[in-house]
Amino acid sequence: MENTIVFGLSSSQELAQKICEELNMPLGKSKTNHFADGEILFELGESVRGKHVYFIQSTNRPVNDNLMEILIGIDACKRASAASINCVIPYFGYARQDRKAKPRQPITAKLVASLLEKAGATRVVTVDLHANQIQGFFDIPADDITSMGLIGDYFKHKADIVDPVVVSPDHGGTVRARNLADILGAPVAIIDKRRPRPNVAVAMNLLGDVEGKTAILIDDMVDTAGTLVSGIEMLKKKGAKDVYAACSHGVLSGPAVERLRNSEVKEFVCTDTIDQSENVKNLPQEVVLSVAPLISALIQAVETNSSLSTALSHAFER
Amino acid sequence: MENTIVFGLSSSQELAQKICEELNMPLGKSKTNHFADGEILFELGESVRGKHVYFIQSTNRPVNDNLMEILIGIDACKRASAASINCVIPYFGYARQDRKAKPRQPITAKLVASLLEKAGATRVVTVDLHANQIQGFFDIPADDITSMGLIGDYFKHKADIVDPVVVSPDHGGTVRARNLADILGAPVAIIDKRRPRPNVAVAMNLLGDVEGKTAILIDDMVDTAGTLVSGIEMLKKKGAKDVYAACSHGVLSGPAVERLRNSEVKEFVCTDTIDQSENVKNLPQEVVLSVAPLISALIQAVETNSSLSTALSHAFER
Amino acid sequence: MENTIVFGLSSSQELAQKICEELNMPLGKSKTNHFADGEILFELGESVRGKHVYFIQSTNRPVNDNLMEILIGIDACKRASAASINCVIPYFGYARQDRKAKPRQPITAKLVASLLEKAGATRVVTVDLHANQIQGFFDIPADDITSMGLIGDYFKHKADIVDPVVVSPDHGGTVRARNLADILGAPVAIIDKRRPRPNVAVAMNLLGDVEGKTAILIDDMVDTAGTLVSGIEMLKKKGAKDVYAACSHGVLSGPAVERLRNSEVKEFVCTDTIDQSENVKNLPQEVVLSVAPLISALIQAVETNSSLSTALSHAFER
Amino acid sequence: MENTIVFGLSSSQELAQKICEELNMPLGKSKTNHFADGEILFELGESVRGKHVYFIQSTNRPVNDNLMEILIGIDACKRASAASINCVIPYFGYARQDRKAKPRQPITAKLVASLLEKAGATRVVTVDLHANQIQGFFDIPADDITSMGLIGDYFKHKADIVDPVVVSPDHGGTVRARNLADILGAPVAIIDKRRPRPNVAVAMNLLGDVEGKTAILIDDMVDTAGTLVSGIEMLKKKGAKDVYAACSHGVLSGPAVERLRNSEVKEFVCTDTIDQSENVKNLPQEVVLSVAPLISALIQAVETNSSLSTALSHAFER
Amino acid sequence: MENTIVFGLSSSQELAQKICEELNMPLGKSKTNHFADGEILFELGESVRGKHVYFIQSTNRPVNDNLMEILIGIDACKRASAASINCVIPYFGYARQDRKAKPRQPITAKLVASLLEKAGATRVVTVDLHANQIQGFFDIPADDITSMGLIGDYFKHKADIVDPVVVSPDHGGTVRARNLADILGAPVAIIDKRRPRPNVAVAMNLLGDVEGKTAILIDDMVDTAGTLVSGIEMLKKKGAKDVYAACSHGVLSGPAVERLRNSEVKEFVCTDTIDQSENVKNLPQEVVLSVAPLISALIQAVETNSSLSTALSHAFER
Amino acid sequence: MENTIVFGLSSSQELAQKICEELNMPLGKSKTNHFADGEILFELGESVRGKHVYFIQSTNRPVNDNLMEILIGIDACKRASAASINCVIPYFGYARQDRKAKPRQPITAKLVASLLEKAGATRVVTVDLHANQIQGFFDIPADDITSMGLIGDYFKHKADIVDPVVVSPDHGGTVRARNLADILGAPVAIIDKRRPRPNVAVAMNLLGDVEGKTAILIDDMVDTAGTLVSGIEMLKKKGAKDVYAACSHGVLSGPAVERLRNSEVKEFVCTDTIDQSENVKNLPQEVVLSVAPLISALIQAVETNSSLSTALSHAFER
Repeated sequence: MENTIVFGLSSSQELAQKICEELNMPLGKSKTNHFADGEILFELGESVRGKHVYFIQSTNRPVNDNLMEILIGIDACKRASAASINCVIPYFGYARQDRKAKPRQPITAKLVASLLEKAGATRVVTVDLHANQIQGFFDIPADDITSMGLIGDYFKHKADIVDPVVVSPDHGGTVRARNLADILGAPVAIIDKRRPRPNVAVAMNLLGDVEGKTAILIDDMVDTAGTLVSGIEMLKKKGAKDVYAACSHGVLSGPAVERLRNSEVKEFVCTDTIDQSENVKNLPQEVVLSVAPLISALIQAVETNSSLSTALSHAFER
Repeated sequence: MENTIVFGLSSSQELAQKICEELNMPLGKSKTNHFADGEILFELGESVRGKHVYFIQSTNRPVNDNLMEILIGIDACKRASAASINCVIPYFGYARQDRKAKPRQPITAKLVASLLEKAGATRVVTVDLHANQIQGFFDIPADDITSMGLIGDYFKHKADIVDPVVVSPDHGGTVRARNLADILGAPVAIIDKRRPRPNVAVAMNLLGDVEGKTAILIDDMVDTAGTLVSGIEMLKKKGAKDVYAACSHGVLSGPAVERLRNSEVKEFVCTDTIDQSENVKNLPQEVVLSVAPLISALIQAVETNSSLSTALSHAFER
Repeated sequence: MENTIVFGLSSSQELAQKICEELNMPLGKSKTNHFADGEILFELGESVRGKHVYFIQSTNRPVNDNLMEILIGIDACKRASAASINCVIPYFGYARQDRKAKPRQPITAKLVASLLEKAGATRVVTVDLHANQIQGFFDIPADDITSMGLIGDYFKHKADIVDPVVVSPDHGGTVRARNLADILGAPVAIIDKRRPRPNVAVAMNLLGDVEGKTAILIDDMVDTAGTLVSGIEMLKKKGAKDVYAACSHGVLSGPAVERLRNSEVKEFVCTDTIDQSENVKNLPQEVVLSVAPLISALIQAVETNSSLSTALSHAFER
Repeated sequence: MENTIVFGLSSSQELAQKICEELNMPLGKSKTNHFADGEILFELGESVRGKHVYFIQSTNRPVNDNLMEILIGIDACKRASAASINCVIPYFGYARQDRKAKPRQPITAKLVASLLEKAGATRVVTVDLHANQIQGFFDIPADDITSMGLIGDYFKHKADIVDPVVVSPDHGGTVRARNLADILGAPVAIIDKRRPRPNVAVAMNLLGDVEGKTAILIDDMVDTAGTLVSGIEMLKKKGAKDVYAACSHGVLSGPAVERLRNSEVKEFVCTDTIDQSENVKNLPQEVVLSVAPLISALIQAVETNSSLSTALSHAFER
Repeated sequence: MENTIVFGLSSSQELAQKICEELNMPLGKSKTNHFADGEILFELGESVRGKHVYFIQSTNRPVNDNLMEILIGIDACKRASAASINCVIPYFGYARQDRKAKPRQPITAKLVASLLEKAGATRVVTVDLHANQIQGFFDIPADDITSMGLIGDYFKHKADIVDPVVVSPDHGGTVRARNLADILGAPVAIIDKRRPRPNVAVAMNLLGDVEGKTAILIDDMVDTAGTLVSGIEMLKKKGAKDVYAACSHGVLSGPAVERLRNSEVKEFVCTDTIDQSENVKNLPQEVVLSVAPLISALIQAVETNSSLSTALSHAFER
Repeated sequence: MENTIVFGLSSSQELAQKICEELNMPLGKSKTNHFADGEILFELGESVRGKHVYFIQSTNRPVNDNLMEILIGIDACKRASAASINCVIPYFGYARQDRKAKPRQPITAKLVASLLEKAGATRVVTVDLHANQIQGFFDIPADDITSMGLIGDYFKHKADIVDPVVVSPDHGGTVRARNLADILGAPVAIIDKRRPRPNVAVAMNLLGDVEGKTAILIDDMVDTAGTLVSGIEMLKKKGAKDVYAACSHGVLSGPAVERLRNSEVKEFVCTDTIDQSENVKNLPQEVVLSVAPLISALIQAVETNSSLSTALSHAFER
């Protein structure tokens, strides 16, 4: 691994530090200047000639700055003759814009994939992509690892979870709920939203049964937490004993932290794909699980040409 | 439209004919020879110089022959100076291989998209792609139209459908079921499959209620019909009055036709994205809806530079 | 021109409006949503199928948001089958990062050019690029027009400019100063900065003579205005009667407006490649010249397949 | 060579096995599923991360299935981070479609080359390409080795070949005939086909002399064997003592085996670029020479960075 | 055709002039400066915005200057927004380097094709390519027209050609000889060169019969004329009454003109794909046929979107 | 370094020889044939399989032949499986055509960069590029080293240089003059050319003071030497004690050598980026400094994956 350098960019400094600790190597030296006019100047602080570079950078808020920073970093490494340029993007921003939902819309997730490749990325690693198909937006190797095993383990070993039921907050998340349920040996339920007619409020219905059970609401990301919180309320009304919520990506924009703090959620479990160091201060119910061991195991497997599926078996279960 | 030519390739001769009738124009002349050694020779029977070419070709069985035929056709048109080469692929084969389900797997749907672009396609049109994200596998304009409106209309105007409930045969299809249910103003139910432990048979459970109702099982494609037929049986056991099944793509491989004929399905409704002329002879329950009006409206909108969303409003609802 | 649509993106709304007035056509309809998590959703408000699209968007502060917005807009138009996608970027951000000043640096201006092409841009139009060579970063047609004629005309017709001398604030700008001097029939002077030894302050020297003359300091852009204001002071000390300053791009970051307001500059002349509507309120010495007539003449020439060099003769003099 | 894996795909299982035996290494593990709907699922059975992969796959009948299989295999290896992906295609299907023989025809051999490169192939190895120029269809290294030395050696060491003359069955093969004749120190003759007027039968004439000699008809491939068998008859009529036929690629479609069995040919000599295990059972005159030693020598030279021209000197003579 | 401009570059000024006369349009204005240091500056003398540009430029000696000139011209047109850039290269230099004859050789003909495409060419037109397969080196439309009909017509209508026999000077040209023979209704003969052992002189043998006949030696190009002249001598020795020689491309390097003048050739017939205005002065036996009518008919067909195969039927016979 | 081969092409044989001596390795074997018709055949004389190839080739006169030779060499290495193809082009021809000075002009320097990349170059090394921005014309690593340190050292250690002043011959070279002046601790002066009105002779003015000083005129290249010689005359008239001239690239076309020999220049200092072995015979004032140590240090750093900026610190100062 002496030929490997890991750089932590602006959004993922702490995670990069943890990954390097797991790998027992120092964090690479680099500097990002943000000028008064908003431009970024990225400079490598050490030679990357012939080295395998790993950038750790989630593209959460400010998404465009974080994205440009990694693109510029890639360009610098390409021109400085790095042997390979691996982009670890634990939270892949714009992932929800993965198709034309309506005519005349862009497919921004594909655009972002194309920009990364054009800049010179040679591999991409993500965690719990919003849709697995986004792997196919890349022509370079793109590995998506899942934190579902991490989250499953957490709940499996939690003493006070009795008679659990895994709940999907909408129809788009039922496969994910079924996967977590399989890990826990639990049944599933689905919140079925329906808009009877235009201009009539959405009606929420529950498919499946939560009465007297411990409900675990699972989603891939929680943004403004509006949907999640109304789901929590509904599950309590339907008789759930306790409601836990879990997700991979704690985006937590706008009113999210406040909403969750004031909700009846027992715990809000998420990973550190997005830095949670500020959020945990304001959200006592938050539990953060780190993906650093998963990512460092992946880097080690890649750099020693070992089999990923052996090293990370349960991070690919889906 | 005098600058437009529509060619029907091997798998979609009949559909191409219908589309040309809708467009009130003759089918373009081309010839595909299949040699003794399996090679295909494709020859254009008329000049395409400066013309806007539309190939109509589903890539169903024999998928590789049909795919190579359209790739060769594209190459011929590119070298013969066509102004644009539009590939209408109502059934897009390999669509289920749209992600790495396990490490070391290919993403064949993306490969196919890349091959079409490399050959020289300038636009792709599909019907009810297995996953919408496949649009993002293309850098050229890729429009996916849906036959859900067609299928919804069919059931809406059917007198004997009383108290319908739309059923998804698995967790992956719940969004589609919800969409059809919204068109019909009906509730949904979901067949919840679960494998308690390895080597233990899959347990089927129903989320939602079908008792005394008319169940409409909806999927995007039906291949060997095994899942569908066991779903039909289960719904009958759960007390459904009648069970209809519907899908966009009637792949109907291997034992599918026999299984459906012998099942308790009242009607099996699908479209002609895949030619059903042989299947209908052996499957009395089959009802075929044609997508030709949708596709011809799209071609007309493209060639007259009109808005697709106006011309085809209900074919983009999802 | 009925096949042409002009869209004004976030940074250049006012300029786009002026251009459309010159062209006597309505501004195209589009909407940019900025979500709580920083992501941008861009939607075209009208069909662009077969149309020639012009985006007007300077990539000044916030440069990364503005850049991503136009990239997403390009993607939307490409997927919506625009006939051509023309990017008018009057101020081209990151232009100063146009070479490796030191090893291991990126060439961000080239990266930006590559991203625009990859997204699908088919033409780029800029005003007074920091270095003309940036045109060569593009493989698509890239036209750079100059506002030097506009600025020259302004000073030529100003009654109170007697005995002018054009001054370059550094060695990098001497060619530009010579060009403006040729328009005005004036001599040039150059501020010669020199760092005798490391850790010794820069010494400023003047090559040429300004005593008793009207000095016009000319640069391509003014960012924090530090260099400019120390140049103004030096010229006054060297005996210049009046000092004017002019530039194409009024970036005016951080303390720039305050510095200029408090300086001895008689007038600060710049164009509206960057929106100056806020700055003029706080900077009484500012005079803004509009590039809208230049850009609209270029669009008209392109869309009517006329010769650009005829339509815009004096905008290409350099 | 511990970093090298050889995979044998559907059409060349036996040849791949022989090559691995020559290289003294086990055949790589992979699995190709052919589904009921004709789709192929290819899965790598072992890690290829950082490995040099060699696929052995001739694209003979069923050519489109065999071609798609290798394309999918390439995609899988690319996404699984193989260091290089080498495609050994001993018989390169569609090679006869190597130019536009008439306007509006495709150039399918070039299309196939482009598809292989697009999928991610990094090297191609072929045997006796129909036209050497096809090497130029590739931008990746493309090495064509010839079995002419193998065939020449066979005839040189055959006791009963007295006074040989090498015969080309048509004008397109005269250079090949001259090459073999040079190896054998023999004269050449050419069958001159001529169509005096449209709708008049082709007249066959012989340039050169075969009377009392042992004629060796040489071609690069034999497909339906019609031309070959009429050539054999003609040579016997012209007084040839014995007639041998030889070719690199025994395509042997349709009636070929029967025609040859019933002909006066003394021996039909070909290589195993196309699997002959079924044909030899029905064609007693067939003699099969293996190209496995040539291909394994090439792989060894590539993987040890030795000179190909040294290792394979006589396989490049032409 | 008002949207079409034809430019004649350095090597083909006269041919371009003839083509424009056939098309009844003025030659486009352009200027090529050759500087003292060998660099070329190409400038367009009129606007090409939205125009279909045709460059006429053979890449004969000085081949590298002529090639760079057309590449630079393409770049200029691309950046000046030409609608299409069509390269008519009647003699395509480097065509003989169309394959790796030995390991470690370049394939320069493919390189040239790639350079033309990279520069921005959108179509290529050639005359009698050395190998038809070179068409497949291009991804853009590449049409090769043949002058064989022109040459055939010339000999067909020549009174003094009695009892003709068409002779190929080597094995590589037998197909071409057979084609011309078919036009003339004549038999063929082939000069069979053979090198018995290394360091032994090449032995020339004749396959076929020329005694008392009028022999027409046909080749695609004549370079130093050594092979041709020794062929002429041999045919005379074998009893040919008269010997004519014909080719498409009169390269005529080094001693060629003198050799031919002093030979027993009755006429040397070639076309003006390479300018012959100097050669005819020194070679009384030379007859020059112009390809201008073929090329102008092709341009007319392309620009009016007519069928090439109709317009130029006999220029595609092969 | 045993995996590295250095080839010297036609224009830089001597420099390549010196570089190999510095690196203590033999020059690679290759052969370039120039045929009678101007075509080049390049053949590698040894295996490059898996090797890191360095071509040394300046693209001075005959620029087009030298450029094609290196392009062909790259193609040969690419097809022969070189591990990397590094192009050391000390003098990069066509560098002055780096922007559109007028509409409808090509950007030939970018075209050349694109051709090198398309052919297969993986790295480019240049010396004192006419404009640094040309680095950005490449997507592959492009390192430009400067000989300004070499030239600065020469003058610094020259005893007879008293009271030096560095002079730029025009406005475009002032930054370069300032850099050299900083090395020497000297002031600068600038020759200010001005054309008062069309058809009036250019007036030369001097900004700064040279009286009684030793003037050092510095430019990046000297072509026909007209500007330089008139600058020398002017400086002498303005009272300069001695005038030295220096440049990186001694192009010296046409009358340059004679003009310089007859001028009052004390020394003409340049490097061997362009071979000066002929020029020094005719120009007694010429002093040639070799860049071989710079280039060999760069090659060593690249091949041992060391930091370039350490190895070559003063070759990157600018």
